[in-house]
Amino acid sequence: MEDHRSPDFPSLTIPLFEEMKKVFQTREGQVVIFPSSGTGAWESALTNTLSPGDKLLAPRFGQFSHLWIELARRHGLEVVVQEEEWGTGADPDRIEEALRADKAHEIKGILVVHNETATGVTSDVAAVRRAIDAAGHPALLYVDGVSSIGSIDFRFDEWGVDLAITGSQKGMMLPAGLGIVCASPKALARMDTATCTRAYFNLADHFKANAGGYFPYTPALPLLYGLRESLAMMFEEGLDNIFARHRYLASGTRAAVDAWGLSLCAKEPKWQSDTVSAIMVPAGFNGADVIDRAYRRYNLALGAGLSEVAGKLFRIGHLGDLNELMLLGAISGAEMSMRDVGIQVEPGSGVAAAQEYFRNAHGAADQRLAAE
Amino acid sequence: MEDHRSPDFPSLTIPLFEEMKKVFQTREGQVVIFPSSGTGAWESALTNTLSPGDKLLAPRFGQFSHLWIELARRHGLEVVVQEEEWGTGADPDRIEEALRADKAHEIKGILVVHNETATGVTSDVAAVRRAIDAAGHPALLYVDGVSSIGSIDFRFDEWGVDLAITGSQKGMMLPAGLGIVCASPKALARMDTATCTRAYFNLADHFKANAGGYFPYTPALPLLYGLRESLAMMFEEGLDNIFARHRYLASGTRAAVDAWGLSLCAKEPKWQSDTVSAIMVPAGFNGADVIDRAYRRYNLALGAGLSEVAGKLFRIGHLGDLNELMLLGAISGAEMSMRDVGIQVEPGSGVAAAQEYFRNAHGAADQRLAAE
Amino acid sequence: MEDHRSPDFPSLTIPLFEEMKKVFQTREGQVVIFPSSGTGAWESALTNTLSPGDKLLAPRFGQFSHLWIELARRHGLEVVVQEEEWGTGADPDRIEEALRADKAHEIKGILVVHNETATGVTSDVAAVRRAIDAAGHPALLYVDGVSSIGSIDFRFDEWGVDLAITGSQKGMMLPAGLGIVCASPKALARMDTATCTRAYFNLADHFKANAGGYFPYTPALPLLYGLRESLAMMFEEGLDNIFARHRYLASGTRAAVDAWGLSLCAKEPKWQSDTVSAIMVPAGFNGADVIDRAYRRYNLALGAGLSEVAGKLFRIGHLGDLNELMLLGAISGAEMSMRDVGIQVEPGSGVAAAQEYFRNAHGAADQRLAAE
Amino acid sequence: MEDHRSPDFPSLTIPLFEEMKKVFQTREGQVVIFPSSGTGAWESALTNTLSPGDKLLAPRFGQFSHLWIELARRHGLEVVVQEEEWGTGADPDRIEEALRADKAHEIKGILVVHNETATGVTSDVAAVRRAIDAAGHPALLYVDGVSSIGSIDFRFDEWGVDLAITGSQKGMMLPAGLGIVCASPKALARMDTATCTRAYFNLADHFKANAGGYFPYTPALPLLYGLRESLAMMFEEGLDNIFARHRYLASGTRAAVDAWGLSLCAKEPKWQSDTVSAIMVPAGFNGADVIDRAYRRYNLALGAGLSEVAGKLFRIGHLGDLNELMLLGAISGAEMSMRDVGIQVEPGSGVAAAQEYFRNAHGAADQRLAAE
Repeated sequence: MEDHRSPDFPSLTIPLFEEMKKVFQTREGQVVIFPSSGTGAWESALTNTLSPGDKLLAPRFGQFSHLWIELARRHGLEVVVQEEEWGTGADPDRIEEALRADKAHEIKGILVVHNETATGVTSDVAAVRRAIDAAGHPALLYVDGVSSIGSIDFRFDEWGVDLAITGSQKGMMLPAGLGIVCASPKALARMDTATCTRAYFNLADHFKANAGGYFPYTPALPLLYGLRESLAMMFEEGLDNIFARHRYLASGTRAAVDAWGLSLCAKEPKWQSDTVSAIMVPAGFNGADVIDRAYRRYNLALGAGLSEVAGKLFRIGHLGDLNELMLLGAISGAEMSMRDVGIQVEPGSGVAAAQEYFRNAHGAADQRLAAE
Repeated sequence: MEDHRSPDFPSLTIPLFEEMKKVFQTREGQVVIFPSSGTGAWESALTNTLSPGDKLLAPRFGQFSHLWIELARRHGLEVVVQEEEWGTGADPDRIEEALRADKAHEIKGILVVHNETATGVTSDVAAVRRAIDAAGHPALLYVDGVSSIGSIDFRFDEWGVDLAITGSQKGMMLPAGLGIVCASPKALARMDTATCTRAYFNLADHFKANAGGYFPYTPALPLLYGLRESLAMMFEEGLDNIFARHRYLASGTRAAVDAWGLSLCAKEPKWQSDTVSAIMVPAGFNGADVIDRAYRRYNLALGAGLSEVAGKLFRIGHLGDLNELMLLGAISGAEMSMRDVGIQVEPGSGVAAAQEYFRNAHGAADQRLAAE
Repeated sequence: MEDHRSPDFPSLTIPLFEEMKKVFQTREGQVVIFPSSGTGAWESALTNTLSPGDKLLAPRFGQFSHLWIELARRHGLEVVVQEEEWGTGADPDRIEEALRADKAHEIKGILVVHNETATGVTSDVAAVRRAIDAAGHPALLYVDGVSSIGSIDFRFDEWGVDLAITGSQKGMMLPAGLGIVCASPKALARMDTATCTRAYFNLADHFKANAGGYFPYTPALPLLYGLRESLAMMFEEGLDNIFARHRYLASGTRAAVDAWGLSLCAKEPKWQSDTVSAIMVPAGFNGADVIDRAYRRYNLALGAGLSEVAGKLFRIGHLGDLNELMLLGAISGAEMSMRDVGIQVEPGSGVAAAQEYFRNAHGAADQRLAAE
Repeated sequence: MEDHRSPDFPSLTIPLFEEMKKVFQTREGQVVIFPSSGTGAWESALTNTLSPGDKLLAPRFGQFSHLWIELARRHGLEVVVQEEEWGTGADPDRIEEALRADKAHEIKGILVVHNETATGVTSDVAAVRRAIDAAGHPALLYVDGVSSIGSIDFRFDEWGVDLAITGSQKGMMLPAGLGIVCASPKALARMDTATCTRAYFNLADHFKANAGGYFPYTPALPLLYGLRESLAMMFEEGLDNIFARHRYLASGTRAAVDAWGLSLCAKEPKWQSDTVSAIMVPAGFNGADVIDRAYRRYNLALGAGLSEVAGKLFRIGHLGDLNELMLLGAISGAEMSMRDVGIQVEPGSGVAAAQEYFRNAHGAADQRLAAE
C-alpha cells in the first residue's frame, strides 16, 4: 500500500473522482471523498454552502431525515420542517407550495433523504426538482443518497441536484469510512459567501489538494483501494443492471410480504424502496421480538424499527452483494422467527411467493443471464 | 509464515498430530499428514501395509469405493469385490461370511468407505468390526473417512479401525491439499514386511521426521496453519456438537425431500448420510438438468450423480461451515430448479418442512443456543 | 463482520475504550473514537472545549503545529503563536513567561505537538505541564500525539494533559481512518459552556452512545476490529518494551547519520524523535532529489521536508512494525540514493555504524531477546 | 472459490497448462500439475517412464541429487552414481564417457538437478544434452528444476529435456503444494511400456482428465488460483527480465561475499547459482552458529549446510519477490551474525560492496527502471 504523499498516488486517486461522478450520473458536479461516515458528508454539504441563520425546508418522514435536520440546527441553520407520515416521503406539492409562499427567497435549501432506510421509503427527487422549478425558486437541492446511490437510479444532473451525499458502506459495497459529497457548480458558487464554520469538512481544501491527486490530510487509504475495485465491478455490471437487480430482489421480497398477509411500512407502491423492505408486524406483536429471535436463533440480522416506528416493524435489507438464494434464506429466517414469536404466517408461504416471482421475472433475470 | 526447517516450526506441527488424533478419536493410532489429496492417503494406507498379490475384501456401492478398489489393483493387490446395491453400504453379514470362508486368512484387509458421497450413504463401521471379530479374522480394517471424519461420529479405537484416511477439504473446513492417514499399532507392525513400492507416501519417513516436528519434504505450509485454526474451532464447538449439528441440518434436508414427495438414494433410514443427501429425480427427468439449471440460473452448486446413478439424482451437501438459512437457501434453489425443468414439486413445500423441522428440533438446536 | 447495531457489538467496543485508556496512560481520561483522520480529532478537541474568540497559546516549530494553529483559527479561536526555530520544540520557559503575563487568564489553552514529524523533534510535555503549574495558570493542555502515542512514552495523567489526540495510522499500526480523542475531567467540564459549533465531532453524542457500546453514526468497523488486534499485540509486547524498541531503532539510525558526517534537523539530542529522523542534506544538494531517487530507483519511501525545511532534509521513519534488518535496508537505500545524487557519504558507513550500535545495545536488545 | 467439478472450472485450468508450458519454454512438452510437493513430481517423472530394474545415470553433488537417487532406488531402479565434488555440478564429459561405454544402451535415463540448493550450484543442462547427443545415446534426460524454473533460464525444448519437474514454492512465488511435471513426446511414448507401479502420480489419468479441464481427484484449488496470478505477474515482467533480476541480485550478493574475504561453496564462477549463495565460513567456525544467531537475534532465516557441507556454510536465498533493500538487509544480518559469533568481517563491508554493485549495474537495473 502506497504512501499518500508518493508520486504515484495520484494515479490511484484522480480516476476515483472521475468514476464516482459516473455513479452520481453527473458531468458538471465535483466530487470530494472524506475519511468519515455519511454524517460527515451531511455536515460538509451544509457548512460549505450556507451561513448561520439561513433557512432550510425539510420534509421529515423517518429517522435519517430527522437526524439531518438536527445536525443542520446545530450549525445554526433554521429548518422549516414539513412533517410527513412515516411510510410516505417528500411531498412535491407541499414543497412547491412552501416555496411559492417564500416570496423573499429566504429558503436557501431543501433537504431530501432519497431513500429512508428506517421505513423503506424512496422519495421522488425528480418530482421535487420539478416542484422547485415550478415555484421558480433558487433554493439549493440537498439530497441524502447514502442508501440509494449505486443501488437505485440517481441522476444528479438530470434532477438538478446541488449537493448529493453518500458513503462507502451501502451501494459501494465497502466497509463504512468514506463520506462522499458531490456539488453542482451552483453549489460551489456559494462556498465563498457561506460562513458556516468548517475546517475538517472544508470542500475548498479538498478541491485544491485533489486537483493534484492528493488530500489535505491523511485519507482512509485502504478504502480508496477498495473503492477502485468497487467502481470497476459496478461498471462491469453496468449501473442499469445494478438498479434492475435491486428492483428484482426487492420485488421478490414484496411478493413474500404479500403472501404472509402483512403490509410494508411504505404506504403505497410508489414509496417502496428497492434496497430495504420495512415490514409491519400485526397488532399485538413487537417487531423487536422478531428481530431478537432472528438474531439469536437463526443468526440473521434484521433491521429494527427506529423512533416513531420502533417495535412496529422489522426490516429486510436487499442491497449489495446478494443473490436470490441468500435472500430466500433471509426470508425463511424471517418466516421462522415470526412463527416462533407467535405471528401466524403460513410456513414457506413467503418463500414460495418469492420463488415464483424470481422464476417468472424474465426481465431482470434474463438480462442477468444473458450478461453472464 | 515460517520456514519448514526453522527451529520454531515444531511448535506448530507437533500439536497438530496430537489434535488430529482426537478428531480420529484415537489414543493408540499415529497420524501422518501428506501434501496430497485424499487419493494419496488411500495409496499410503495400502502401500505401507500390504505386498503385491495380497488379497483384499471390498464392498462396492458407489463411486469412491469403486475408485479405491481400482487404485488397490494398480498396486498389484487382488481385490475381492462384494457388489452392494447403490443406495446401501457395506453388509456386515456378507463380510463375516466371506471372512469365515477364508480359513487360510488370505484376506489381508477390508476396505470400507464410511460415507459414500456419490449416493449419500453411511456404512456402519462398528458393525463391520463386529463381523470381523465374529469371524475371528486377522485382516486389517481400512476405512475411507474423507467425507465423514470431523462431521459424522468416527471412532478409530472403539471400532478397531487399522487405517483411516481423510483429507483437509471436508470436515476440516479447509481447501483440498492435505491427505491424512491414521494407523493403528497393528497396522504399523506390517510396515516392515509390506513390500508394495512406496516413496512419496512412505509412512516411515514421516514418522521419523515428524518425531522432531519436521517433514521429509516440503509440506503444504499454509494448510498446516489452517489446520491449527480448524482444530481450535472444532474443539471449541466440541465434536459431539458438530456431529449433532450435521444430523440436525441433514434431518431438515430430509424433511424437505419428504415434503417434495421424492426419495433419497439411500434405501433405508439407516443408510442416510448426515453430510450429503442424494435425491432421486422422478422417472422421465434428468438430474443433470436440475443441476445445470441450479448452477446457471441460481448460482447453486448441486452435486451430480456419478457413474451408475448418473442422471438419476442430484445432491445437496450439508457439511462444513453452514447454517439453517444457508441450507434453506439451497433447498429453495433446488425447488426452483426442479420446477424450472418441469418436476412438479409444490413451491415452498420443501422449505416449509425444513423450517418446521428446524423450529421444532429442540435437541440439537437448543444445545447450540446454550453453547452460544 | 457484525452490524454496528447488533446486540453483540458492545462486547467488541466497550473494551476498546478501556484499552485505549491504557495506551494514553490514563485512569481519569475518557476516550472517543471517530471515523476520521487525526485532523478531525484536532477539531473535536478544540470545538468541544472552547468558544469562538477564546485565546490559545501555541508554539510553532513545524508543519503540524502550523496546521493545527490554522485549524483553530478557522473555528474563530485567537491563537497567540510562539515561533520556535524548526529543529527545536515547545519552550517551557517562554510558555511559563506568557502564562505569567496573562494575569486575566485570557489564554484558555496551550497547543503542543508532542512529536513533530516534519522535523523529527519531540517536545517535553512534562516540562510544559510544570511551566503551566509554575505560572499557576488554569489553561487546558492540548497535545497532538498522532506520531508519538503508542510509540514514545506519553503519560496523560502524570503530565496533566487535558486533551490528547491520536490516530490509527502510526503507533496503532493500522491504516488511517480513526481519529482518537482523550479528554480529562477538567476538559469535559468545559463541554457545557463551550460554544464552538460542532456536530459530527461532538463528544457528548459519542459519550452518550458509547456508554452502551454503540456509536451515534456508522463507525469504521474494520478498523475497530483491527484496533482490538493492535491493542492485544501492544499489551503482549508491553508499552515499555515498545518505547525501548523505538529508542533502540532510532539510536541505530542516529549512529548512521553520525557516520555519514551529516546532521539531524533536531538541534540538540534532547529534541531527537524516536519515531522519525529528519536528516539535513549538505549545502548545495536538494533533499527532494534524494527522495526521488530512493523512490524511483530503490522503491524506498523517504519522507520529504515540508514548508520551511522543504528541500533541506529527508526523513527516515522508524515506527511501527519494523526490525533492525528492515531499517538497515532503508539506511542502505538512503546511502545509495545520496551517492547517486552526488552526496559523498562513504559506502556502507551508515549501515556499519547502525550495525555496531545494534550489536552492542544490550539494554533494549536483550530485553527483546529475553521476551521472545 | 469454485467447485472442481463445475462447468466453469476448465476456464481456469486449461490456460494454466498452456501458460506453464511457456515457463518451461516448451511447445512440445505436456504439463501435469499434482497436489504434492516437488518430491511427488520426482516420483511421477520416474514411475511413468521406467520399469523396475532399469538403469539410470546420476551425478551426485548435493542433498537434492542425493535424495532423488534414493527415491529412484526405492522404485526398484538401478542408479549408477557419478560422485562429483560438492560445489561443482554435473560433468558433461564424464556423462558422455559413461554413455559411450554403455554400448548396449542399458542406461535409460540421466538424472540432473539443475540448481542444487544445498551448495548454490547450477549445472549446465545444455552441455549435458550435447554430451548425450555426442554419445549418440537414447537415454531420457530428467531434470529437477524445482529451484531454477521460473528464476533461472531453463529451456525444455532447446536443451532436449525429456522430463522436467518443479514445484509451486520457489520461482512460482506460491506456497508449497503443487508438484509440476513436463514431459516430452519421447518421454510420453514410454508410458505404455513403463511398468513401475503408479497410481496417484499416474500421468495418463491426468492427461485424460486434464483434456477436458478437470482432474482425476481433488486438486489443490487455491494454489491453482494462485498459479494463475503468478503466471500473469511473470509474463507481465517477462521471463528474461526475471532471469536478469535474479542474476543482478545474485551478483550483488557475490560482491558482498568477496568483500568479506569469504568463498562460495561453488568452486568456480560457472557453477554459481543465481537463486542461492552458499557461503563457506572460515575454518574453526560453525555455519550453524551463524544461522542460529541470525534467526534468534535478527529474525533472519539463513539456509543451513546439509549433509556433507553441514556446519561448513550458510546460505542466502535471493529468489522470488525480493528487492535490493530487502537483500541488503539480509546481507547486513549475515554480517552482524558473523561478527557476533567471532568471524572477523569488516562491519558494513559486504553491504558497501553490494551497494556499489547495484548502483553501477546498469544492464539489469536500468532495464527494470525503463520497464517501470
